[in-house]
Amino acid sequence: MKVYRLKEFSLGGLQQIEEPEPHAPVGRQVLVRLRASSLNARDWRSTNGTIATITKPGGIPLCDGAGEVVTLGPDVTRVRPGDRVAVNYHWNWIGGPIPDEFNLYGRNVHPDDGMLTELRLLDESELVRLPEHLSFEEGATLPCAALTAWSALHGDQPLLPGEDVLVQGTGGVSVFALQIAKLSGARVIALTLTPEKTDALKALGADVVIDASSGPGWHKDVLEATRGRGVDVTVDVLGYTRWDDSVAATRENGRISMVGAIGGRGGGLSDHFMMRGLHLHPTRVGSRVRFEQMNRALALHGVRPVIDRVFDFDDARSAFQYFEQHGRLGKVVIRHG
Amino acid sequence: MKVYRLKEFSLGGLQQIEEPEPHAPVGRQVLVRLRASSLNARDWRSTNGTIATITKPGGIPLCDGAGEVVTLGPDVTRVRPGDRVAVNYHWNWIGGPIPDEFNLYGRNVHPDDGMLTELRLLDESELVRLPEHLSFEEGATLPCAALTAWSALHGDQPLLPGEDVLVQGTGGVSVFALQIAKLSGARVIALTLTPEKTDALKALGADVVIDASSGPGWHKDVLEATRGRGVDVTVDVLGYTRWDDSVAATRENGRISMVGAIGGRGGGLSDHFMMRGLHLHPTRVGSRVRFEQMNRALALHGVRPVIDRVFDFDDARSAFQYFEQHGRLGKVVIRHG
Amino acid sequence: MKVYRLKEFSLGGLQQIEEPEPHAPVGRQVLVRLRASSLNARDWRSTNGTIATITKPGGIPLCDGAGEVVTLGPDVTRVRPGDRVAVNYHWNWIGGPIPDEFNLYGRNVHPDDGMLTELRLLDESELVRLPEHLSFEEGATLPCAALTAWSALHGDQPLLPGEDVLVQGTGGVSVFALQIAKLSGARVIALTLTPEKTDALKALGADVVIDASSGPGWHKDVLEATRGRGVDVTVDVLGYTRWDDSVAATRENGRISMVGAIGGRGGGLSDHFMMRGLHLHPTRVGSRVRFEQMNRALALHGVRPVIDRVFDFDDARSAFQYFEQHGRLGKVVIRHG
Amino acid sequence: MKVYRLKEFSLGGLQQIEEPEPHAPVGRQVLVRLRASSLNARDWRSTNGTIATITKPGGIPLCDGAGEVVTLGPDVTRVRPGDRVAVNYHWNWIGGPIPDEFNLYGRNVHPDDGMLTELRLLDESELVRLPEHLSFEEGATLPCAALTAWSALHGDQPLLPGEDVLVQGTGGVSVFALQIAKLSGARVIALTLTPEKTDALKALGADVVIDASSGPGWHKDVLEATRGRGVDVTVDVLGYTRWDDSVAATRENGRISMVGAIGGRGGGLSDHFMMRGLHLHPTRVGSRVRFEQMNRALALHGVRPVIDRVFDFDDARSAFQYFEQHGRLGKVVIRHG
Repeated sequence: MKVYRLKEFSLGGLQQIEEPEPHAPVGRQVLVRLRASSLNARDWRSTNGTIATITKPGGIPLCDGAGEVVTLGPDVTRVRPGDRVAVNYHWNWIGGPIPDEFNLYGRNVHPDDGMLTELRLLDESELVRLPEHLSFEEGATLPCAALTAWSALHGDQPLLPGEDVLVQGTGGVSVFALQIAKLSGARVIALTLTPEKTDALKALGADVVIDASSGPGWHKDVLEATRGRGVDVTVDVLGYTRWDDSVAATRENGRISMVGAIGGRGGGLSDHFMMRGLHLHPTRVGSRVRFEQMNRALALHGVRPVIDRVFDFDDARSAFQYFEQHGRLGKVVIRHG
Repeated sequence: MKVYRLKEFSLGGLQQIEEPEPHAPVGRQVLVRLRASSLNARDWRSTNGTIATITKPGGIPLCDGAGEVVTLGPDVTRVRPGDRVAVNYHWNWIGGPIPDEFNLYGRNVHPDDGMLTELRLLDESELVRLPEHLSFEEGATLPCAALTAWSALHGDQPLLPGEDVLVQGTGGVSVFALQIAKLSGARVIALTLTPEKTDALKALGADVVIDASSGPGWHKDVLEATRGRGVDVTVDVLGYTRWDDSVAATRENGRISMVGAIGGRGGGLSDHFMMRGLHLHPTRVGSRVRFEQMNRALALHGVRPVIDRVFDFDDARSAFQYFEQHGRLGKVVIRHG
Repeated sequence: MKVYRLKEFSLGGLQQIEEPEPHAPVGRQVLVRLRASSLNARDWRSTNGTIATITKPGGIPLCDGAGEVVTLGPDVTRVRPGDRVAVNYHWNWIGGPIPDEFNLYGRNVHPDDGMLTELRLLDESELVRLPEHLSFEEGATLPCAALTAWSALHGDQPLLPGEDVLVQGTGGVSVFALQIAKLSGARVIALTLTPEKTDALKALGADVVIDASSGPGWHKDVLEATRGRGVDVTVDVLGYTRWDDSVAATRENGRISMVGAIGGRGGGLSDHFMMRGLHLHPTRVGSRVRFEQMNRALALHGVRPVIDRVFDFDDARSAFQYFEQHGRLGKVVIRHG
Repeated sequence: MKVYRLKEFSLGGLQQIEEPEPHAPVGRQVLVRLRASSLNARDWRSTNGTIATITKPGGIPLCDGAGEVVTLGPDVTRVRPGDRVAVNYHWNWIGGPIPDEFNLYGRNVHPDDGMLTELRLLDESELVRLPEHLSFEEGATLPCAALTAWSALHGDQPLLPGEDVLVQGTGGVSVFALQIAKLSGARVIALTLTPEKTDALKALGADVVIDASSGPGWHKDVLEATRGRGVDVTVDVLGYTRWDDSVAATRENGRISMVGAIGGRGGGLSDHFMMRGLHLHPTRVGSRVRFEQMNRALALHGVRPVIDRVFDFDDARSAFQYFEQHGRLGKVVIRHG
């Protein structure tokens, strides 16, 4: 079978090689033919060595994958051959609170290899069925970005219909957060740093789009759009560089779900933050149970993940290159064929 | 001012009389000019004496009312003259769990008189602002039926988008439950005992309408509509007479929110119920905080309460008569002028 | 190895036989040497055929077991050889809400055999570490009865310190519920049908013991002990035969966690129940995550499970006989040697 | 009647004067004779003008008070003359989530005067009954410090028995947090900056006391006391100056309840914080419903608030002076006579 391994920390170090197929599944193992995978910021950073703790030299990159079940170990009960499945990011977070033995980096931390391969042996407990209306390419976008967005909104405390949500930019998590907030009956205020994306955000359902391209101070527009109250939930992807605006844009005693890095050692815990009484939740990706709940909602509402571009498996390096160089709207996907 | 008082338990006992206006508001009191009120099953039953514990002889009927703020006591901070408000059903349930000193019958238990009057002195803590898009007639339908529906769905444990909800019939609570479940991103299966209401239920957004006019056994249609799983939440208004179907139509470990009386002493707690693991929640109306949360959702989604018919204040007796005699779709309202 | 199999539905049908040891663990499998097991009412009923859906002819009985890890499959990360572990009742309920593919009868539903054997292959996800202060005999009492008690109190909504709890009798679940309620800071009112157990219940920490041996009407004593309010939570094991007392003993809008069968088709959902607004939660055993949370509490408080009597592995039939015939205080255990 | 008013921002500006008694209670008003009050850090800071937004010139200081009900307005139903009551910090936070119109500074923000007076008119909704085993002096310590501690532990998500809690120092909130965590069945690790208080903390029930007098780095002792895991909940009163230790002492995905100011604009939101996944909850004081829940727990467990010293009403200025100058263990109280 064909598989990519990261021979060294660089795009050139990402090499396609031929390897023997995995052994026949035992116990609760399931052999899955991966039909698509997708990229996240973590993958680029781990490939070029910025975060050396994710895909290590010799490892298979990419945490996001979708495919179909090929064969089953003798004890498998949850899936059948031919089932269309995605793979949960945290293999051992099935449901409930995050387990202690939790791995922040989830999938594709070596030796727990990733999804940029034709075949994988996986435990049945890690698999979720794809919503029927989604292609494999669309399904492959869900594990990291969509579930992070769902957790940011419904994870610690469910979003209620009628609440106001602030999303920032057009990356994978932000676009999914917009879509999920809308199908949850919330009102969405979307921030964009590039004014030309305003129409796309409105087409995705944003109730208000705020142009933040002129720098700090955009919290005033958020306050104006909420009658001075601020949003109930901010899904923060901008981190420390725009922290003061995010704090000021969130209502008193509201919450900020932090996604991604905060942008280096810095400030944040000002008296202003304290007095606003904001609840801060660093977002983890999510459990398999949440993934299943999310899929029911995506299926009911016919939500289609926004895909920026699809690359062929043999052209996977180009996907990484594209991911780094272009302002995207939605996800970059690799089709495994 | 004009006010109705129940002189004795009968429709004829409901008499309009002239009384002096209330004294000027003191403390946190607010004088409210009621502009509309609406009827619930409890009001009819208490007027004819079936439930003698609600409106007692001499009392003012109707728990549902909406109006505008006229004058304020010196300590009032929450509202201003001219504000359009509705009145919370339980005067002392502001937020959080139901208080111990809770009164099941809420408003218009004598001497805590009801809303079928031109003017009322109320505590500011009992008032909620009406959504702007609603008329007084529409606002007067919210306190009992809409908030009961909201509590049945979001009260003990929030409904998640993508979940399946079963509503029964076309009474006030059921229609609001349909509307609120839809704006919450859920899928709604509506049961009707009168096939000619199918189109109206579909127009209100029901994903599936099941004709239950032919008697027991309709749980099979619910199971078919949910791939054999059953709904996550049943908002039960049929009570004991159709209990077995309601139990069988709800998924294992799902929940039944019971609204209204169960229909006399009877069964219910069968081994079947036990083995399905159903959670049973007798619905209370709700706190003022929930009312406010609901209003944000109704406002965002522009939900219009379904009004079956509006009667004039001077013709209030006819409203009671109509309420009893006709199969309704939605609420019966009295316009106070 | 030695193992018991139920050849037919009768005590005589329970036979010890010699079988080959399981194959070497593969994938995430773990070979566990069971050192003790314990009995629950379900085991007796399934052995004599009352509930034919649990241990089927040919199956290994008993859902409760504790032992030590012997060898590991190549993918195991959660345990190490020598670890002292118990086995979760529901193999696929790891955390969060009950899964749809949930099996009410949990462990030892054939072919998912039980624990009355010397060796078992188990998935690492089903294992929890024993609290250090417990012996294997004590640890073997936890999976079904203790976790059911924990779920009855902390499952759907955590018990708060200062709340009142009613427990009934001296069976396994009731005694654990008493112990867990006490370590949670609650006040415990214990009901006993046999007055001679009063001292034992007080010694276990019951704040109030009520003698219910004279028949119905004991709710009055519960009300008196709670200043007329009723308990916040009733852990009901008496079912339908004493239902009216249980309903009347629980405070308005309180909750009843139902354990075990309700005692045949019957009543229950009276208007009285409805008007008290009681929340009804049929208890399921619990997830592995809850089991781990419970173990932390048992360990901190040094709780020792109450064991009525211990039998040797070769004398397992006597344990079943004893279980049926004697009024117990706590659990009946089998020591595997 | 005698009352203190803050004529200007200084200890000398705090003057006892004679004023007419309040008018007879109207509506739901209750006249309360205050029998004791207590001091919090906020009171000292507002008296000397550090925080000018609390007690303004002309206002009556102190948010904490307890007393007995004297007379009732005609609409009062919740209390009776002679009832022993405390006053909730936030007059309009009755239950549920914090209201939007919430005032961070709660009581004694002018013109919503404080408790350093002989008589006060209060709304019945602001009053909670004192636990019977407490004196007025003890009861007066509860409104701000004890309820803040309860909210820090049980507010957003209930503490479970068996969890580990870190408390810091011997101020009012920290000592109550220790006592409440213990009665909730948790394990308490107490930090002290003054080694001579170790014995007192152990006597109050701390499972582990850590001497942090030698400066930063004490998180290592916390990790050692929790087998490297860290505590589940940190009740943080040290703020920014010791932030790195607090973060490192809290388990991954645990929570920090922040009490009091964070210590000036600074850092806090490091990548380390983000990667630990800590949930941050700035603590508000709490609702009246929470206060009542807390009182049930305090009563059941016979918890006695720790009082450092009691001053007479006529000597109130000395209480302020003492509060500022001495390292306390517990609360400083004023007896009104």
